[in-house]
Amino acid sequence: MFGVTILGNNSALPAYNRHPTSQVITLSDHLFLVDCGEGTQMQMNHYKIRRSRINHIFISHLHGDHYFGLPGLLTSVGLMSRQQDLHLYGPSALKEIIDLVLNVGSTILPYNLQFHALEETSLLVNDEHFSVECFPVFHRIDCWGFLFREKRKPRKINPEATTRYSIPVDYFELLKQGEDIIIDGKTISNAELTIPNKPSKSYAYSADTLYNESMAEIVQRVDLLYHEATYLKDKLDKAVSRFHSTSEQAAMLAKKAEVKKLLIGHFSSTYETLDEFLAEAKAIFPDTQLALEGQTFMIV
Amino acid sequence: MFGVTILGNNSALPAYNRHPTSQVITLSDHLFLVDCGEGTQMQMNHYKIRRSRINHIFISHLHGDHYFGLPGLLTSVGLMSRQQDLHLYGPSALKEIIDLVLNVGSTILPYNLQFHALEETSLLVNDEHFSVECFPVFHRIDCWGFLFREKRKPRKINPEATTRYSIPVDYFELLKQGEDIIIDGKTISNAELTIPNKPSKSYAYSADTLYNESMAEIVQRVDLLYHEATYLKDKLDKAVSRFHSTSEQAAMLAKKAEVKKLLIGHFSSTYETLDEFLAEAKAIFPDTQLALEGQTFMIV
Repeated sequence: MFGVTILGNNSALPAYNRHPTSQVITLSDHLFLVDCGEGTQMQMNHYKIRRSRINHIFISHLHGDHYFGLPGLLTSVGLMSRQQDLHLYGPSALKEIIDLVLNVGSTILPYNLQFHALEETSLLVNDEHFSVECFPVFHRIDCWGFLFREKRKPRKINPEATTRYSIPVDYFELLKQGEDIIIDGKTISNAELTIPNKPSKSYAYSADTLYNESMAEIVQRVDLLYHEATYLKDKLDKAVSRFHSTSEQAAMLAKKAEVKKLLIGHFSSTYETLDEFLAEAKAIFPDTQLALEGQTFMIV
Repeated sequence: MFGVTILGNNSALPAYNRHPTSQVITLSDHLFLVDCGEGTQMQMNHYKIRRSRINHIFISHLHGDHYFGLPGLLTSVGLMSRQQDLHLYGPSALKEIIDLVLNVGSTILPYNLQFHALEETSLLVNDEHFSVECFPVFHRIDCWGFLFREKRKPRKINPEATTRYSIPVDYFELLKQGEDIIIDGKTISNAELTIPNKPSKSYAYSADTLYNESMAEIVQRVDLLYHEATYLKDKLDKAVSRFHSTSEQAAMLAKKAEVKKLLIGHFSSTYETLDEFLAEAKAIFPDTQLALEGQTFMIV
């Protein structure tokens, strides 16, 4: 499974029972937490997401609505006697904050909290099956987006064909990698012996950002793009002055980047309902959805 | 009105939809926030308590379940364009944390946050009608309780009596203060001209603490004592090792201090239901209530 579950979709001021930003990405049996606004651990309880299964946490930037739930989550999993390493990725000052908070509380975590400072576009996680990269976005303070990509999946053996050609199992790894094979001087093409696997999918989380076309290159053709939409287009001035985007701009970016689907969130507390956000984006990029809390969006 | 509204009654790990510690004291038209665990601002939304009306916040100690909601609340009221001074009382390192959090977010609050470090038993607020004092309690790190007291209320003029004796209004202030008056060389006793006002009430919040009899002197005869009850008595060892109390100990303290009523809270996340806490305390101190979230306990 590859999907994103929304825990919070609101901008800074919690309102209308919407919570500050947080998402859980499920990918290849791993759970990744992206941003951790106040109340995230309660939202995880509410939506039955096991806190103990999170091994990697990514914090986009140090505005409170993206990380004020982090100290609570880190200490809670400690109280739950976590032993396994926990990897935390964020701007370097985040470590200073966590260290201070633990220190004044005389709190010693029972697990190893491995902090990784975000400094430039780089590969953060490089697993056999997927990778996670960060990329800078355009906000009032240092801010990072995250790109989750499945790696190219091996081709699948076609057992009927390999039996017909009596291919020894020793060759199967080569076949999965797409290579042709030569048996008794005779070449058998890979396409005859294998079938393609599912295509590799990708998800981009572009955090809090001004509309900036250059981002389209980075998130080009991802299967799902999360882009903030703090305001409607009639508040473009406000969006720009606060380094945020409108719903229309989120859709423009999705269109320019030729992504498959768009998810919008980080709605301003001035809006009680969200229908207009959806309508505004869909007018430009029809395959848009609202990042509603508690919903899981599959990346397919 | 003098009352306490419970926003969170759980110990460190949020569970069973119980939240970490926070209370709002309503006293003489003021709202005071005591402790501010993660999610307090959402609980205030939920229970329709206006964040903007809080002018004084008291933080007992720097374990996260008592203050991780504070940075969010302080920045939220800033986003709501608060202008009025906000007074924050807590251990001195709290200022360091708040300063760091505001600094890394390049956040400038639009109001004056006046920080007052807790250092010894002292009078924190001295209003015409009430006072708030802090007193040290017995926890693993520096920890403070808070004592809210109404001041002695003036006696009320008995208009029927003052008319009968033809007492000039110029004397009314003296009468309210309880003094006898002399008119034409003749003493008229205060009791003939006035009636007693309602008695002055008091509330003590004793934060996270080991059972310690010496606290009984400090909270003696208060009308309502909030005392933590993290565990049941069969977990006394655990309570002691973690600098907490059992429900029985909370009741013993209430009895020793001869308080009028007892409120217990800060329940460990290991307990799904709370009935046993109540039964255990009532066996020793019958006038006990559970600090249930969303409930307001009048101090009468």
